[in-house]
Amino acid sequence: MPSPSGIITLTSDFGSQDYYVSAMKAVILGISPDVRLVDISHGLPPQDIMAGAWVLKNTAFLYPPGTIHLAVIDPGVGSSRRPVLVQVRDQLFVGPNNGLFSLVVESQEHRVFELSSKRFWREVVSPTFHGRDIFAPVAAWLSRGEAPEQFGRELKELTTYRWAKPIADEEGVQGWVMHIDRYGNLITNIPESFIRKYEGHSAFKIYVGNTILKHISVSFSEVPDGEAVALIGSSGMLEIAINKGNAEHMLGVEKGAPVSLVIQKSVS
Amino acid sequence: MPSPSGIITLTSDFGSQDYYVSAMKAVILGISPDVRLVDISHGLPPQDIMAGAWVLKNTAFLYPPGTIHLAVIDPGVGSSRRPVLVQVRDQLFVGPNNGLFSLVVESQEHRVFELSSKRFWREVVSPTFHGRDIFAPVAAWLSRGEAPEQFGRELKELTTYRWAKPIADEEGVQGWVMHIDRYGNLITNIPESFIRKYEGHSAFKIYVGNTILKHISVSFSEVPDGEAVALIGSSGMLEIAINKGNAEHMLGVEKGAPVSLVIQKSVS
Amino acid sequence: MPSPSGIITLTSDFGSQDYYVSAMKAVILGISPDVRLVDISHGLPPQDIMAGAWVLKNTAFLYPPGTIHLAVIDPGVGSSRRPVLVQVRDQLFVGPNNGLFSLVVESQEHRVFELSSKRFWREVVSPTFHGRDIFAPVAAWLSRGEAPEQFGRELKELTTYRWAKPIADEEGVQGWVMHIDRYGNLITNIPESFIRKYEGHSAFKIYVGNTILKHISVSFSEVPDGEAVALIGSSGMLEIAINKGNAEHMLGVEKGAPVSLVIQKSVS
Repeated sequence: MPSPSGIITLTSDFGSQDYYVSAMKAVILGISPDVRLVDISHGLPPQDIMAGAWVLKNTAFLYPPGTIHLAVIDPGVGSSRRPVLVQVRDQLFVGPNNGLFSLVVESQEHRVFELSSKRFWREVVSPTFHGRDIFAPVAAWLSRGEAPEQFGRELKELTTYRWAKPIADEEGVQGWVMHIDRYGNLITNIPESFIRKYEGHSAFKIYVGNTILKHISVSFSEVPDGEAVALIGSSGMLEIAINKGNAEHMLGVEKGAPVSLVIQKSVS
Repeated sequence: MPSPSGIITLTSDFGSQDYYVSAMKAVILGISPDVRLVDISHGLPPQDIMAGAWVLKNTAFLYPPGTIHLAVIDPGVGSSRRPVLVQVRDQLFVGPNNGLFSLVVESQEHRVFELSSKRFWREVVSPTFHGRDIFAPVAAWLSRGEAPEQFGRELKELTTYRWAKPIADEEGVQGWVMHIDRYGNLITNIPESFIRKYEGHSAFKIYVGNTILKHISVSFSEVPDGEAVALIGSSGMLEIAINKGNAEHMLGVEKGAPVSLVIQKSVS
Repeated sequence: MPSPSGIITLTSDFGSQDYYVSAMKAVILGISPDVRLVDISHGLPPQDIMAGAWVLKNTAFLYPPGTIHLAVIDPGVGSSRRPVLVQVRDQLFVGPNNGLFSLVVESQEHRVFELSSKRFWREVVSPTFHGRDIFAPVAAWLSRGEAPEQFGRELKELTTYRWAKPIADEEGVQGWVMHIDRYGNLITNIPESFIRKYEGHSAFKIYVGNTILKHISVSFSEVPDGEAVALIGSSGMLEIAINKGNAEHMLGVEKGAPVSLVIQKSVS
């Protein structure tokens, strides 16, 4: 593990109208006054562990080695789910063991430690706010160079969700809309590598809602304003968008909707 | 008063779609280039002084000694309300004298100074944006070590609201919902100390909307998913929540609604 | 050009529920670990270039000399619009050449450079996220002191929109609502200088929606709570507001609505 980068990122579903994010920052600064705090997102849908996992996956590994990612989407706070520290590649993650780290550990070697050593916690721990009382101080102590092993025993397994993977065969792929961003772009769970396999074929169709698309474009602007376009988005996934428009609203498609790519057999 | 911590926090109802927060930060950085800026919240409901008072109370004292809290919820900007600086315990608060600091001074010794010394203001002061032109530069100069006495004369009294306190007698407590957070948790104005007095009793009932609760739980997860639970929240107040759900929506209760705890007399 | 202030500001329409802002920050910190990041706004309406131009104009020049402003509202990402760097007074702007910098260059000498030197880009550039792959690394390298000339050839012209200017003659001014802030204040495109010309006149009327106002006030509180008021706002523009209320909702006026000031001829 590299030495700390001096950066702690924060990810939560706490929103911006409450004192919860600030309470975590205050606790961190009391312990580690020189650390740099970077908000990843606090506007994730309440209790949406999958959205948190998605955001972490797409941004955590862009940070300098030795960065600590504090992530709190924690509908089971105070229940039997354990607080954990996860080491993946050159990054550290601190938060609840509830699936939030499913995507950052995917296909990656990782180590997991239970946060059981109370000397890194706040003296009084609220059963409803481990973000302030356990995760924030642990992240702060990590940023001061404490080794992961100090925080508790190593666990064999991390809780991970296997969110539905796309199903692929020689006739095509069946996936679904995993995320809709602020522009209404429909981001699927179908990675670029799946799509590339079908590019040699004479023709294929992509079905989403009532819309059929026949090409994978490179950028939004390849189609006229207001028209639907399929492309590989900046997260490396198949994405359905409207050039200068909102695909969620204009195509009437919701998170979770099926998206399929079907190969057109030549009639020869 | 301890020396400055090097931190200025910012709290406002300015939202995130305007230039107002940035204007305050730019002014601060022009005066005090090395200070650390931490946002507490800018998503408070427009002109909701009570919400600001609540957020400050729950987070300000977690910061290192000598932290400066710039707080601007200021519906009376440009009227006769005075700009002030308030010293409470080891923290400093800067903002309008309109009740915003009611809860941070509650039961605390404090000193109040009027911000009248114009050499700490911007040269031109807009009558509608004291945040940028008075409060931000004052906070910046404070962070550089100027003594509170330099900013203006000491005032005998701070404007404070006495938001309705719960009423308690031997039969129970009558309070109300003071805040609803992003999860829909109903946070009351009934502090833990009030509740503890009734715990020896054989039985009590908590009434909120059309719901009756008979226990104070420790965490959300003590009840099944989707059921209502009463507990002491992370702010030390009685809170009504739904495990993995939204109490505001599911119980149909709004901010300001009454909450009462009534002791059940034994029939013996 | 002054040496870098050590500050990079960020402005976008990325919102707070995605990883886009964080991805830009991570890339910057990987290149320029000591730079200070200040968010101007990420809550601008999706693809609203005018809103971005307005926010930049009102806040950029408050920052210390040598500050770099990274601004990404980029509906044409991946199309033929060029990535640019703009030098205005003592500030630098980085973003798409799509009109976003129209208001910061207004009546100001400025220089424009095309961002064509790929050694300052990320190795792989997504056609849909130049914020992460071109603009963020360029801003980071600028903050390390690279000269604007290093990034590409100088362009003769910047793309600017000439958003409708108010029309003025001896009978009055015809303008429109250019921006509505979080409080519902209606900010017009009529600058203070236009208004001052008419102040000598015995009387004038300001028409907005179904409301007529006869005075320019100094602050909101000059009228009773709940009444409409016209004043010069903190941005130096004519503004229509409701004292402690929301003019957008109470007057039923939308962005783009006409606002006119008409001089009342004396009957003598």
